Amino acid sequence: MCSVISRVNPVQRALALTLRLRATTEGSSKAAAEIRRFCPGLSAVTDPLRATSRSYCSRMALTEGLLFRQLFESESSTYTYLLADTETKEAVLIDPVLETIDRDLKLIHELGLNLKVAVNTHCHADHITSTGLMKKRLVGLKSAISKYSGASADMLLSEGDKISFGKHYLTVRDTPGHTDGCMSLVSGDQSMAFTGDALLIRGCGRTDFQQGCAKKLYESVHQKIFTLPDQCLIYPAHDYLGQTASTVGEERRFNPRLSKSADEFVNIMNNLNLPKPRKIDVSVPANLVCGVQEV
Amino acid sequence: MCSVISRVNPVQRALALTLRLRATTEGSSKAAAEIRRFCPGLSAVTDPLRATSRSYCSRMALTEGLLFRQLFESESSTYTYLLADTETKEAVLIDPVLETIDRDLKLIHELGLNLKVAVNTHCHADHITSTGLMKKRLVGLKSAISKYSGASADMLLSEGDKISFGKHYLTVRDTPGHTDGCMSLVSGDQSMAFTGDALLIRGCGRTDFQQGCAKKLYESVHQKIFTLPDQCLIYPAHDYLGQTASTVGEERRFNPRLSKSADEFVNIMNNLNLPKPRKIDVSVPANLVCGVQEV
Repeated sequence: MCSVISRVNPVQRALALTLRLRATTEGSSKAAAEIRRFCPGLSAVTDPLRATSRSYCSRMALTEGLLFRQLFESESSTYTYLLADTETKEAVLIDPVLETIDRDLKLIHELGLNLKVAVNTHCHADHITSTGLMKKRLVGLKSAISKYSGASADMLLSEGDKISFGKHYLTVRDTPGHTDGCMSLVSGDQSMAFTGDALLIRGCGRTDFQQGCAKKLYESVHQKIFTLPDQCLIYPAHDYLGQTASTVGEERRFNPRLSKSADEFVNIMNNLNLPKPRKIDVSVPANLVCGVQEV
Repeated sequence: MCSVISRVNPVQRALALTLRLRATTEGSSKAAAEIRRFCPGLSAVTDPLRATSRSYCSRMALTEGLLFRQLFESESSTYTYLLADTETKEAVLIDPVLETIDRDLKLIHELGLNLKVAVNTHCHADHITSTGLMKKRLVGLKSAISKYSGASADMLLSEGDKISFGKHYLTVRDTPGHTDGCMSLVSGDQSMAFTGDALLIRGCGRTDFQQGCAKKLYESVHQKIFTLPDQCLIYPAHDYLGQTASTVGEERRFNPRLSKSADEFVNIMNNLNLPKPRKIDVSVPANLVCGVQEV
């Protein structure tokens, strides 16, 4: 991470120091250095908003009766997402983290939700999922993960599978590359994509461990995510710079890695030289069984 | 903060340790202890979602042509909000932080926005605003703050004033109590309220410095925020637990302080015994002149 610190300008130094404490395992550490490259001035702007706008609102989809909450776990910089049908109260939780299980259960309880499925976008290397412990606390809760992850769960998912909650659903798109078992979850109206570590905001997951393959990741993002509507909101599994959402249109245009050619992307990914994830030896074995606890 | 650490259960210890590093000045430090009190079990739920739902989506408003981004600065746990008209590209930035100025300018640049106004919900004690420096970098940008803040700015606002950007606008509601110059900004359709430190998610700003007054804060929140529609989304200036949004209905019901009577609230606030904000002696003088730089 020292290279990151030395390459930012003085104004960003405080941010970079924070990043040094927080940036973890999922491959976005170089983004801190890259952030400065793409804003040389404030001129020569065409119309990038066009890519993120329609006649309606680009900040949100017009899905009726859907409750949505984005939650953050600061140690691993992980986003957890809660989605629920406001009528039936059926809910889905994406990528819950062990350290924040009480916060998440409290919110689910307060909102009177019936959590049906806790799903992990992949077998995480940087934190332990709370899925297993949550199953012990919530009767009827099912765990879910990609069938290509090698992990145990109640539901083993693959391309085209749907996770339903009330009148809403999420559709699975296999997006391997960070790991073989990575999947993205797309809302029924294609207004939101939960991209796990396949696509981060102006970044992506690393590809140098856990079956990682840069070529495969490039194909996944371009074929399964960049084919979604431009205004589709991107909700990643992590962010290390305080960003909370992006859009397909923005990432297609501004992602410093994935806007490049496949060859350039592979070259970038093969030269990141990232340190080994600090928690990988603990997290991966635990996450293969839903976080140590019973699945 | 030690009391926070000692009162949480083992599962939350990791979170509490993180909080000890991160919780700062704005009065939500006790929330970490309070979080456990309100979820004794998972039974006896009535229908709290009713307060946050209509026939449409409770996670968002149906404002057409509005771009919205929530951004986070991790050292002071501050949220910055970017709102823009997707057609005219006119934009407003709420509570920008000095450390993240480059990130914010990069995003504004990429999206091709014309930032008209950078507004602070109050004279912050925990971080320095980037408003002044941003004015040097963006021609035509105006700074704004409450006229009761005592701070310098291009626009001195008070109850009922509007900040317009394209076809959208934010309306000022004076919400003193944390400071005399605190204001909340409410979107034209009352779907979103940017509450600064007056109302945090399951918490509120402290009232023991900078003209703080618990009774005044209680009146502000109950008269100016809790009178908004139940499903109005609450976007605070800070969160220390990884929460990103709430609703008026939820806070009216579940806020551990503001759901109490006025007398109980005053008693709670008068007994928080919080440490002096670490950066107050630097931040407040700087923020009185838009962050040291020219206004």
